[in-house]
Amino acid sequence: MVSTSFMEQHPKGCHKKASLGCSAPAPFPSLPSEVRIVTFDANNLDTQDITPVVLCGGAGTRLWPLSRQHFPKQFAPIIGDKSLLQLTLERVAKLNISDQRSVICVASETHRFLVAEALDQSGVEGTVLLEPVARNTAAAMTLAALHAKPDTALLFCPADHYIPDTAAFTTMVRDAIVELDDSVIITFGVVPTAPSTAYGYIEMPPPGEKHTARPVSRFIEKPDVTRAHQLIAQGNVLWNAGIFLCRANALLNAMQQHAPDILEQCRRSMQVAAVDKLFVRPDKDTFSACRSESIDYAVMEHHSNIRVVPFNGIWSDVGSWNAVADLTTADTHGNRVEGDGHFVHASNTYIHAPCRPVVALGTQNLIIIDTPDAVLVTTREHVEQVKHVVAELDRKGRSHVAFHRKVARPWGWYDSIDAGDRFQVKRICVKPGASLSLQKHHHRAEHWIVVKGTAEVTRGQETFLLTENQSTYIPIGEIHRLHNPGKTALEMIEVQSGSYLGEDDIVRLEDSYGRITEKN
Amino acid sequence: MVSTSFMEQHPKGCHKKASLGCSAPAPFPSLPSEVRIVTFDANNLDTQDITPVVLCGGAGTRLWPLSRQHFPKQFAPIIGDKSLLQLTLERVAKLNISDQRSVICVASETHRFLVAEALDQSGVEGTVLLEPVARNTAAAMTLAALHAKPDTALLFCPADHYIPDTAAFTTMVRDAIVELDDSVIITFGVVPTAPSTAYGYIEMPPPGEKHTARPVSRFIEKPDVTRAHQLIAQGNVLWNAGIFLCRANALLNAMQQHAPDILEQCRRSMQVAAVDKLFVRPDKDTFSACRSESIDYAVMEHHSNIRVVPFNGIWSDVGSWNAVADLTTADTHGNRVEGDGHFVHASNTYIHAPCRPVVALGTQNLIIIDTPDAVLVTTREHVEQVKHVVAELDRKGRSHVAFHRKVARPWGWYDSIDAGDRFQVKRICVKPGASLSLQKHHHRAEHWIVVKGTAEVTRGQETFLLTENQSTYIPIGEIHRLHNPGKTALEMIEVQSGSYLGEDDIVRLEDSYGRITEKN
Repeated sequence: MVSTSFMEQHPKGCHKKASLGCSAPAPFPSLPSEVRIVTFDANNLDTQDITPVVLCGGAGTRLWPLSRQHFPKQFAPIIGDKSLLQLTLERVAKLNISDQRSVICVASETHRFLVAEALDQSGVEGTVLLEPVARNTAAAMTLAALHAKPDTALLFCPADHYIPDTAAFTTMVRDAIVELDDSVIITFGVVPTAPSTAYGYIEMPPPGEKHTARPVSRFIEKPDVTRAHQLIAQGNVLWNAGIFLCRANALLNAMQQHAPDILEQCRRSMQVAAVDKLFVRPDKDTFSACRSESIDYAVMEHHSNIRVVPFNGIWSDVGSWNAVADLTTADTHGNRVEGDGHFVHASNTYIHAPCRPVVALGTQNLIIIDTPDAVLVTTREHVEQVKHVVAELDRKGRSHVAFHRKVARPWGWYDSIDAGDRFQVKRICVKPGASLSLQKHHHRAEHWIVVKGTAEVTRGQETFLLTENQSTYIPIGEIHRLHNPGKTALEMIEVQSGSYLGEDDIVRLEDSYGRITEKN
Repeated sequence: MVSTSFMEQHPKGCHKKASLGCSAPAPFPSLPSEVRIVTFDANNLDTQDITPVVLCGGAGTRLWPLSRQHFPKQFAPIIGDKSLLQLTLERVAKLNISDQRSVICVASETHRFLVAEALDQSGVEGTVLLEPVARNTAAAMTLAALHAKPDTALLFCPADHYIPDTAAFTTMVRDAIVELDDSVIITFGVVPTAPSTAYGYIEMPPPGEKHTARPVSRFIEKPDVTRAHQLIAQGNVLWNAGIFLCRANALLNAMQQHAPDILEQCRRSMQVAAVDKLFVRPDKDTFSACRSESIDYAVMEHHSNIRVVPFNGIWSDVGSWNAVADLTTADTHGNRVEGDGHFVHASNTYIHAPCRPVVALGTQNLIIIDTPDAVLVTTREHVEQVKHVVAELDRKGRSHVAFHRKVARPWGWYDSIDAGDRFQVKRICVKPGASLSLQKHHHRAEHWIVVKGTAEVTRGQETFLLTENQSTYIPIGEIHRLHNPGKTALEMIEVQSGSYLGEDDIVRLEDSYGRITEKN
């Protein structure tokens, strides 16, 4: 018998996208899924609806230099052209049969515009709960559960996992929803394909009756190589993927039982939360006082009513450069490339080269990551220690830990393409309809040359249009604003000239994004 | 007894520079030199004068990506801030006691302005013999010998060797000059410090009478490892450094005897050579018909009257990335760095990082070369195969084989800092007093913003000055010229806008450098 998916049982045309194949290569062999009949209550669509909660708070330190503090890996186009967050949003937006498409994102205040951008690009409506400080997954998930209605089915999932088969993912989650009650927490475990030491494991009792969700014997932390082999040999283990499904009140009850202090701080911070369009801001002081704990430690390892659903599709936590490399097809010498990489007498080498040619000559078991302003070369054995590199550069005060050369802004981005004594050059892109703040600078003049699209320039009392191959000049101290009135992106070259060129030389008089008091 | 150098015997103050120490670290242990008394004829200074002939024709393929077709390694600042050619010119300019400071350079037509620039920067007067095509060292040296007066003592030396101890080098050459007659060719051999397979060897008979120059038993090609160990064990061998001293007629006589065809083609091409300021251009067709042969094969291996003088100072042919790495001081883990390199758990790794941070994590025996537009990562074992990389990229039609992002011009340089659809951005530097050609473009307009110094701009019928933070616009088809009238370098940002932006969209109406017909 062939596998029967949820989609095939409800061929009403409303979920066409869910059956789209994935063109990404399969790094793991896909196991045949069990064939089951799904119980589905067509009269109770509301309670079958799922509100996805996308956890966007990861730091992604192990993927430096592509992932940086102000632009962690979930926002980066690591696989293909879309960011992991956008891929995640597009995947979870297809979970419901009803028109319910809205998601809750939990993210750092620092990354709010990156999340808004991803929501926009994926065409998903969302609310973004902004963590004033990072307090790990227990607090992040609690914020979302407090924000939702008590009986809402919530699917918590990290923003930075790679799960190319959306149809298989949808089927898995929809199959599990029938198991939900006011107490159970369902976790999804990936059927392991290798004795990996990179993941924690979930142990199940031997299979009994044929339920979608099975009991959890225990959670096992990342093992060493020997233990990993033992676990695979013993069977009945899954990789802990950190994906959870439960009703909001089930999580809150579990938090009350196992981590009441965290629940209390979250509740107090949400009671006075400020709402600003799609952003919800829990109170900073109250939330900051919250204990930082993972949901595994805080709840899952102690909770009695946890069940696990196996997932045997392609899955990666994209947790290291080895994991990224393994998502790319290898040539006959085991070499893999993303971008402009070249191999001569090399083997088992991965090159990430988005912006210029990178050549590996005679290398073995090597990872080479090029970015416009920093290069990392590491052996495959050392990829887990990339965080040491970040720590070392941070100790040396290098900005490359926090920022890319190209910086995202709510209105678009800028790329610092050159700099010298008393000048710097930026390429600036403004999205259609977007505006920079009305601003002035005390220490720099600016020359603007439009190279693509149309700019509406406010300079002092004047407002005028500039198109491709036109330019203007903003003297020091002059109030100005740049707006894109068009339907296509505006790009321009800005040459700054002056004695001080720091981003913080800005006086914002008006801003569409609430950044009046921000100094960069 | 302490070593007695030429400088110490002639402490007349005219050679102070020659005794300057070298701050570069010593990669090889320096052997004590033999102590000898130099016979020096103060009444015959003229015949004691040496005309250095600097051979600038090397391709430097093995040092890609720093060395490229249009900017080979001899022109690159590989060690410190000065190019190998400039270091060579400064070294050989100190050979004479008299005021004779002029040198002959033999170089490719393509590199003529690079040689002129190096002559200018090193303060040395020179004639540059321009090879219309590359025909190896026999022809190059013959051109120089034909250009010089017959009895001139010529010191032939490659432009791309690193010899930090100028005083020791000067002493060696001056000591050898007394041995010159109308027939002898003296070569200098480096006392080997390791069984290198990277160099050819010169074998001498066992020492007899104490002469500065000793007979040559034979030349030995680059050996394999076993043979190299045998040679070092047997003793009486030196590394062939490709440095020769002889009178011009001695070389011509040797050429007549061993390679009369090469001599004849060179003679005919020099008879109708065109002189253009410091450049001398042998006839292209005649020279092109010349056989391409190294001086070793053409003459040295067959000539009877060859003597060799040992050199026991620091010497490197800078012939591979290993050789470059070895010129840099290693840390306790054997790591070496030039520029912004960082090591975490790495050993025996070399990083060349002139423009951005490059991090090596856990690597061993690795070489990492970063440039603004290409990256090479190679094992130390594979450095001799960098030429395969160049061949591979050439096959793929990549411009990185020939050009750097930053391109030298007789008036200064330009650096292509950004490009997109229908635009590109360059940073342009014009040397004091220099001018670009009077020109126009059919397909592009240009926006110029001065960021340093002063520009004199000709635009149509106007001529005006621009200083820092001022700009102008050159419409498509408008005749224009950029000149630096100041005493300091002029730098400006140029934004080109148009449908075609190739370098060959240029109509030159006037040019200070004889490039009217050139299309780039």
